[in-house]
Amino acid sequence: MTDQSQPSAPGRPIYARMAVIGCGLIGSSVIRAARAHGVVGEVAVADSSAAHRTRIAELGYADVVTADAAEAVRDADLVVLAVPVMAMGDALGAAASGLKAGATITDVGSVKGQVAEALAAAAPASVFVIPGHPVAGTEQSGPDAGFATLFENRWTILTPQKRDDAPYQAALERLTAFWLALGARVELMDERHHDLVLAVTSHLPHLIAFTIVGAAADLEEVTEGEVMKYSAGGFRDFTRIAASDPIMWRDVFLTNRDAVLEILGRFTEDLQALSRAIRWGEGDKLQAQFARTRQIRLGIVAAGQESAEPNFGRDRRG
Amino acid sequence: MTDQSQPSAPGRPIYARMAVIGCGLIGSSVIRAARAHGVVGEVAVADSSAAHRTRIAELGYADVVTADAAEAVRDADLVVLAVPVMAMGDALGAAASGLKAGATITDVGSVKGQVAEALAAAAPASVFVIPGHPVAGTEQSGPDAGFATLFENRWTILTPQKRDDAPYQAALERLTAFWLALGARVELMDERHHDLVLAVTSHLPHLIAFTIVGAAADLEEVTEGEVMKYSAGGFRDFTRIAASDPIMWRDVFLTNRDAVLEILGRFTEDLQALSRAIRWGEGDKLQAQFARTRQIRLGIVAAGQESAEPNFGRDRRG
Repeated sequence: MTDQSQPSAPGRPIYARMAVIGCGLIGSSVIRAARAHGVVGEVAVADSSAAHRTRIAELGYADVVTADAAEAVRDADLVVLAVPVMAMGDALGAAASGLKAGATITDVGSVKGQVAEALAAAAPASVFVIPGHPVAGTEQSGPDAGFATLFENRWTILTPQKRDDAPYQAALERLTAFWLALGARVELMDERHHDLVLAVTSHLPHLIAFTIVGAAADLEEVTEGEVMKYSAGGFRDFTRIAASDPIMWRDVFLTNRDAVLEILGRFTEDLQALSRAIRWGEGDKLQAQFARTRQIRLGIVAAGQESAEPNFGRDRRG
Repeated sequence: MTDQSQPSAPGRPIYARMAVIGCGLIGSSVIRAARAHGVVGEVAVADSSAAHRTRIAELGYADVVTADAAEAVRDADLVVLAVPVMAMGDALGAAASGLKAGATITDVGSVKGQVAEALAAAAPASVFVIPGHPVAGTEQSGPDAGFATLFENRWTILTPQKRDDAPYQAALERLTAFWLALGARVELMDERHHDLVLAVTSHLPHLIAFTIVGAAADLEEVTEGEVMKYSAGGFRDFTRIAASDPIMWRDVFLTNRDAVLEILGRFTEDLQALSRAIRWGEGDKLQAQFARTRQIRLGIVAAGQESAEPNFGRDRRG
């Protein structure tokens, strides 16, 4: 993967017209970033929520705002599907009658296996389907949550179909250039491997966070007020991702079930082993395990994916 | 608990001489904060690490730096024990021959039941033992990691002994004023309840984080490099507390075993229930659980214990 040193010059967008279906955190960030880097001409948005459409119109970053996906994708060279994972196939189906021949269809879903199948089934033969996943986000949702720098220095994984015809490869190169222009790094990956990697780095962490935050709220002996007051001892770190969009995450777990349960099984075994070491007072085992994990964080900082500042820098004082 | 609106004026320290035994993240932060707010006169430090002692002398924030705890505590009005939890009793035992009658002995350990017992056993009758725990910290360790604002707006929990004589109550009021002057809020609590609350808000989160980070590093199908590259999907949040001091945490789990295993049991039950809902495709159950947890985070933000900025503000660009 080569780095693109310069984004397209103004007036020479990579895509003359982009349609975004679903305009929440990720959809609106794609638009803001694409606008900021001058890599798209016109932008059309379709969103099923009337409240979202009103807000998107107020924010003024789209040329067309509609409830009708087929209308939004008309003449679009790039269509970005940014709805919950289980809605991807239907969203593309709703847009299909408006699709331009030769358009590139991509998505931003956190699961790729089932989405790739759904998109392949819903797409006409005249378009290029290239599933994708920008590994970036925040715990916030909705069209106001997006920002232009969300993808900077983050990885976007593309899981292209197994076809090597020149037009498809050209579409893949163009989509790669688009993400690079938004500041992202790009990696190509098989969709099954993607789903296993993300089960580890994203899906299981979310499941654990949802669980521990819920469990803490259910205790009889410790009040919710106490949990909140003393959360600086570590708990508060877990609450960030446990504040993420419930529907999006429901869909992730239902569509990446096998990989999540596999990774969860490994985690549970390790947790039981540590639990046993605590019960039997095996201090050496505990210390050895705890000493290993610090290195992983240093690697993540070195990979440019994390702040080196203590407490993420969140306690910084101006 | 009343708020102290003004820290002591310069020249009127709360304690004329403070001794700190163990000068890592917390010990050095206590010294820096106490100096910054003018609430101590002289400061003596005892640390068993020669490397730490050299560094503490270079940093210049202590009047006396020694390996000898009994020497450090001579003439001290306040003795702060800031060593790992299982070393607290021995540290006080080593200092005992130098203790001044009427001195206040406190500690900063993350477990209070076993520490309270160890301190009570090691202390002469002439001093006031008031165990404590500032619920604050970072993932970093050592005398360079401390900073003066660490305790600002964080809770310090004191677990006083069951005695209501006036001199002890006066010592408790004075220690409370000390923590308030450092910017902390102060709460009094029974040590058994403290250990249960902290098992929820700190010990279990650390155990989970150590486990998930270790489990991710052990997978055959996903490389450590992939875990690091795609950690922005959620995993990186867990690595912060998994980078915490291994010996400190070994001691926490060994000394708060029963509460940790009890809370871990509750967490495991809930995790199994969610796992079952994933396996059987029960989307409504998943969504309902995920919708609850967002409120907890909003409560923590409202309680002033967390940043409201997306991604903790760590991706902020200057």
